[in-house]
Amino acid sequence: MTATGQEGHGRGPRGGTAPLRVDGERLLGRLAELAGVGATPDGGCARLALSDADRAGRDLVVGWMTALGLEVRVDEIGNVVASTPGVGAPVMMGSHIDTVTTGGRFDGNLGVLGGLEVIETLQDSGVTPPRPLAVAFFTDEEGSRFSPDMLGSLAYVGGIGVAEALAITDVGGASVGGELRRIGYAGPHPCPGPVPHAYVELHIEQGPVLEAEGVEIGVVEGVQGISWQEVRVEGQANHAGTTPMGMRHDAGYAAGAIATFVRRLALELGSPQVGTVGSLALEPGLVNVVARSARLTVDLRNTDELRLAEAERRLAAFLEQLARDEGVGVATRRLARFAPVAFDPGVIDLVERIARAQGRSTMRLPAGAGHDAQMLARVCPAGMIFVPSAGGISHSPLERTEPDALVAGANVLLEVVLALAAGELAAGAGGAGPAAGAAAGA
Amino acid sequence: MTATGQEGHGRGPRGGTAPLRVDGERLLGRLAELAGVGATPDGGCARLALSDADRAGRDLVVGWMTALGLEVRVDEIGNVVASTPGVGAPVMMGSHIDTVTTGGRFDGNLGVLGGLEVIETLQDSGVTPPRPLAVAFFTDEEGSRFSPDMLGSLAYVGGIGVAEALAITDVGGASVGGELRRIGYAGPHPCPGPVPHAYVELHIEQGPVLEAEGVEIGVVEGVQGISWQEVRVEGQANHAGTTPMGMRHDAGYAAGAIATFVRRLALELGSPQVGTVGSLALEPGLVNVVARSARLTVDLRNTDELRLAEAERRLAAFLEQLARDEGVGVATRRLARFAPVAFDPGVIDLVERIARAQGRSTMRLPAGAGHDAQMLARVCPAGMIFVPSAGGISHSPLERTEPDALVAGANVLLEVVLALAAGELAAGAGGAGPAAGAAAGA
Repeated sequence: MTATGQEGHGRGPRGGTAPLRVDGERLLGRLAELAGVGATPDGGCARLALSDADRAGRDLVVGWMTALGLEVRVDEIGNVVASTPGVGAPVMMGSHIDTVTTGGRFDGNLGVLGGLEVIETLQDSGVTPPRPLAVAFFTDEEGSRFSPDMLGSLAYVGGIGVAEALAITDVGGASVGGELRRIGYAGPHPCPGPVPHAYVELHIEQGPVLEAEGVEIGVVEGVQGISWQEVRVEGQANHAGTTPMGMRHDAGYAAGAIATFVRRLALELGSPQVGTVGSLALEPGLVNVVARSARLTVDLRNTDELRLAEAERRLAAFLEQLARDEGVGVATRRLARFAPVAFDPGVIDLVERIARAQGRSTMRLPAGAGHDAQMLARVCPAGMIFVPSAGGISHSPLERTEPDALVAGANVLLEVVLALAAGELAAGAGGAGPAAGAAAGA
Repeated sequence: MTATGQEGHGRGPRGGTAPLRVDGERLLGRLAELAGVGATPDGGCARLALSDADRAGRDLVVGWMTALGLEVRVDEIGNVVASTPGVGAPVMMGSHIDTVTTGGRFDGNLGVLGGLEVIETLQDSGVTPPRPLAVAFFTDEEGSRFSPDMLGSLAYVGGIGVAEALAITDVGGASVGGELRRIGYAGPHPCPGPVPHAYVELHIEQGPVLEAEGVEIGVVEGVQGISWQEVRVEGQANHAGTTPMGMRHDAGYAAGAIATFVRRLALELGSPQVGTVGSLALEPGLVNVVARSARLTVDLRNTDELRLAEAERRLAAFLEQLARDEGVGVATRRLARFAPVAFDPGVIDLVERIARAQGRSTMRLPAGAGHDAQMLARVCPAGMIFVPSAGGISHSPLERTEPDALVAGANVLLEVVLALAAGELAAGAGGAGPAAGAAAGA
């Protein structure tokens, strides 16, 4: 395909037949260099939010931003936004550079360095989009050190007050505010931050779907709603040999029945409903004692709020019936609940159209994990681009995406950003302009 | 009822209309005194086998034995047998006085002190049975310190060599032989020991059946066979949000499915089959991670060896199918396997007939736990008498049996032993003599 076959991205002096493409080697080189900060012996990364390693990573990325002549702003919660000059709200790219303690090299980093690469590619090409561009990294996306996760982007869109966010402490008692000051990232710019024209985040899938389906680019339709509950079952400890089956109040059986019900529930409701019992422990936990109590977790997710609420209702009804049938106490405690987020239809269409125009196979799918994009979606049209994760593995030193796939994702990001900057929002969904997109995202 | 209504027990000088009965206060007093040795603040007992507390308990009981003029023999494995004078193999009573660390006051102790009380009652009454009587306590019945359980009675009947038994060590490295010498109970008498004429053990039920059924005396038909297995499931850790249900290899679901299958298996095979998953743990055990691996235990018991083997076969077939369906690895490891033991029909009938003649309600039931009687059943006609356990609770400081029930059990023991000593074995099952009983028990 040729550049003339592409729509809506700016043309600089080089304009003509050669499609604009990022410098893959430069992108991969930056990913490798950032991965060297906080590198673990097993090939992974450990840059917990606001740690010394995080500071070193931030310093490295800010250095690159500055070298490109970008205006770098650090806000009160430590979010860093680097912008090109220009008038009007920018098209923002970004993600995060903090990791979990057993993190990989691409989760978050790809969206930030991909955004940086898009800007440098345009600079190199002499292309000046009609709107400024920005690339951001948000504080504490992982939530591994400070809860909740996506803290920086949540504050950026006004979802949590700055004072409240700064007062959050880690298990050692260190506060977000204190650690920001310690590492030199307590910035002067206010939070909530300026509303972007649109936001696009390139990210690894962190799931196995794209690889399994042999698809190159994931068109992310939204982020799953999440319902986490802890279930406690109180039964009666008894001798496993001498207690007839009909006289048992067996917390171990009840826990097993819940785990099998959660599987059945997910299958009955059908994709994209998923359900997981990932943690399950029995007391006293002896081979020859009917369990007195069980504690387990249930993770339910759906992209549709009504379906997710239906899954919760069915689980509650099952637990009530189980308590009656087995003669056990069952109590639940909510650990987390997030409603699903739907990304902007215009951005979704744009990602799909451009990826296909670049010759990539695509599929629409939801994000199963949380991302900064879901926070930005509260204030502007937002979307995400996924590239495959080998084996679906993430939050692990084994996290891996093929170099070609990383670069392919950045090239989709490049043209999506250019189209958004050119005002081509929701064009694929009937020609509506940026205003419609902004309304959809509000 | 009167003594003339009873059959087959010896008559001494007092013989006539008053039925022979144990001294309940004396029995309860000895139970309380022994419970004071190794007493725990919560009202329970801790006399681990061959510990200092066990030595103190042994010394106390041996003192009582000696005071009654009994011949006390300690064998190489520390079993203690006290006998009345007389010719021929004795009718033996007994049980154990070691406890688990969270033991109660009656488990084991009742059989030993009940036997002592029977002998003293007969002495007081001037009754001399046609055969000698003996009361024994066997070493390390609980198996809490030295594995296997029922070690002393197993050695007594030749089921394990003395050298092998003495070499067994606890978690701290102390050996049975060394600890026997240390506490002064490495006796001179050889193991295996002399074969008794018959063996009868009075014991608390350690299960809820008698209390729930409102029955006073349990006529024990045998001891359940036991099959313990550890099951390990190897699946694949994955993101609980991003991994579609159809692509999971979920060790948590598999473990839950096994727990529900074990329940279904027990119900399908019907009583007395029981099945329990008492221990179950997942790795990594996080709310948002599909479990990589599970480790659980399966406890299957039945009084019928063929049915127990059938239960094991069905479990194995289920595990094989589950491994295929879920795409997980499933491996099992045998933790214990004991075939069921059937007690002597003559002794069973005798217990039932005498308990009823004493005005007690009875029911036949299997023992769900292991008992020394199952070892003695290898060499002589053996049987057991159960009294109710409040709430079925055992191996707990909450272990409780009403004083009247303890005494009622001892009175059944008294007359059963007299009947056995008088040669009235299997009379209820068609008048067969001791020889038939011995054959059945061999």
